[in-house]
Amino acid sequence: MKRVLVTGAGGFLGRHALPGLRARGFEIHALGRTPPADPGIVGHRADLLDAGSRREAVRSIAASHLLHLAWTTEPGRYWQAPENLDWVGASLDLVRTFREAGGARAVVAGSCAEYDWSGDGADRPLHEAGSPCRPATLYGTAKDGLRRVLDAYAASAGLSLAWGRIFYLYGPGERPGRLVGDAIRALLSGRTFATSEGRQARDFLHVADAGAAFAALLDGDVRGAVNVASGEAPPVRALLERIGVLTGRSDLIAYGARPNPAGEPARIVADVTRLREEVGFAPAFGLDAGLADTVTRVSSGASTP
Amino acid sequence: MKRVLVTGAGGFLGRHALPGLRARGFEIHALGRTPPADPGIVGHRADLLDAGSRREAVRSIAASHLLHLAWTTEPGRYWQAPENLDWVGASLDLVRTFREAGGARAVVAGSCAEYDWSGDGADRPLHEAGSPCRPATLYGTAKDGLRRVLDAYAASAGLSLAWGRIFYLYGPGERPGRLVGDAIRALLSGRTFATSEGRQARDFLHVADAGAAFAALLDGDVRGAVNVASGEAPPVRALLERIGVLTGRSDLIAYGARPNPAGEPARIVADVTRLREEVGFAPAFGLDAGLADTVTRVSSGASTP
Repeated sequence: MKRVLVTGAGGFLGRHALPGLRARGFEIHALGRTPPADPGIVGHRADLLDAGSRREAVRSIAASHLLHLAWTTEPGRYWQAPENLDWVGASLDLVRTFREAGGARAVVAGSCAEYDWSGDGADRPLHEAGSPCRPATLYGTAKDGLRRVLDAYAASAGLSLAWGRIFYLYGPGERPGRLVGDAIRALLSGRTFATSEGRQARDFLHVADAGAAFAALLDGDVRGAVNVASGEAPPVRALLERIGVLTGRSDLIAYGARPNPAGEPARIVADVTRLREEVGFAPAFGLDAGLADTVTRVSSGASTP
Repeated sequence: MKRVLVTGAGGFLGRHALPGLRARGFEIHALGRTPPADPGIVGHRADLLDAGSRREAVRSIAASHLLHLAWTTEPGRYWQAPENLDWVGASLDLVRTFREAGGARAVVAGSCAEYDWSGDGADRPLHEAGSPCRPATLYGTAKDGLRRVLDAYAASAGLSLAWGRIFYLYGPGERPGRLVGDAIRALLSGRTFATSEGRQARDFLHVADAGAAFAALLDGDVRGAVNVASGEAPPVRALLERIGVLTGRSDLIAYGARPNPAGEPARIVADVTRLREEVGFAPAFGLDAGLADTVTRVSSGASTP
């Protein structure tokens, strides 16, 4: 019996990981302040930042697998929020408690923000082993530091551990403050969407594919960092133009009305060789189909998968 | 008024940092499970691994300075102990709580085990900026990960932070399981001291000098990593031969009776340019005088400074 403890199960990515976990035969236990109310999931209510209740819950669930997605994610603010420190400490203790309660396999969410975005060649595909990690933000540094310590702990404690590095996600259920969701909602309701020139190229993946990729990663034994991304990086403008066509309101997009993002590279794209060849995962959505799916779901009012 | 919160104040290094802090005019508050009973120190009893009591104590002390030396240090075991994870989490929260309570300047104990000991040139002097960090142990990785996250937090939160990288210490008050103290106690009591061939060269510093260096580092504004070491690395055999002469029992040292340490480089020595020139610190003891001091104090039964 495979039993998975999922943190962040009610979040944007977490909700989209559940179908894949279920399809793979996992008994799903969701742990957090607001576990999703789903008859197929055993919810455990606990504050992951509180050591006592976190440990008690992890021990009582006694899962074989751990999918740790929870983190502080308030758009804009999370890059430098001091809560990143809390999540490093809570994550270390979560993984340790899981292991000591008999857990065997864990996957933790990382980020493309762990990579060096400043050096020469930062616009080449970012590779798990070949591209240096030199994060420029507190968030990226916290994820990078956590991964280093967890890797050493896993080796020492005999835990099978993988680290899924998330790039840019979009899809149904995005909270306000994120690009694709904000643009779709603005255009569907007839409001102007002010944006940058949109020349920066970013690796975007539909969140349903990201969730399925995490489920596949967890259900195997690939270890270490794995980029969870599409491997393609269109200019942000191309995404917005497509959203304009899909909503029929291209006229509402005000390119150049906002400054270009400062301190970010022209191009962020993943090398997805590990995901494709070692994990054996390929996304179901291309960008056009993924955006069409998202517009359809947002316009129908469905915010969950 | 300079008020310093010291963790690990009752430990080997901590006890030797207190005289320097006092001489520099700090009001000293010691926080831990067993703060030293010293009329010149305000002791606060709390388990540093318990978030609630740790935070309450840090807020009530409201120190301007923090010297964080506490860690899991059980000889031999600490290299791979899972408690290293607890100390990463506790240290992150300690520094954050200190800063949010108005603290301005913090110094945290790091380790030479953060450096890459395996690469080419690992036997050259290890330099804070020039030598790569690629620790081979859970302990070294935990310290390295903690430093990375704290550096980013300090930059984000406007905290002045330095990181004192400790190499090899010796001196009065060493607990069993450490080389110099074990050798002196064995020879003084007429027991054979079984050791390796002792060809490995190590940077040893008298703990009183290390304590004074930490006090000097804290009482300034040098930021980032600073090696706290002598800059010289005699073969371990030279130390033991000197201890043999000082105790008059060279005959009791059995070189080669134990295997050479596995997986450690032939030479570990610090570049101490930053400590000497930026912090302005020079040790009071050379190795001969330092060992003589240690033998004298151990033979007189004094285990504290």
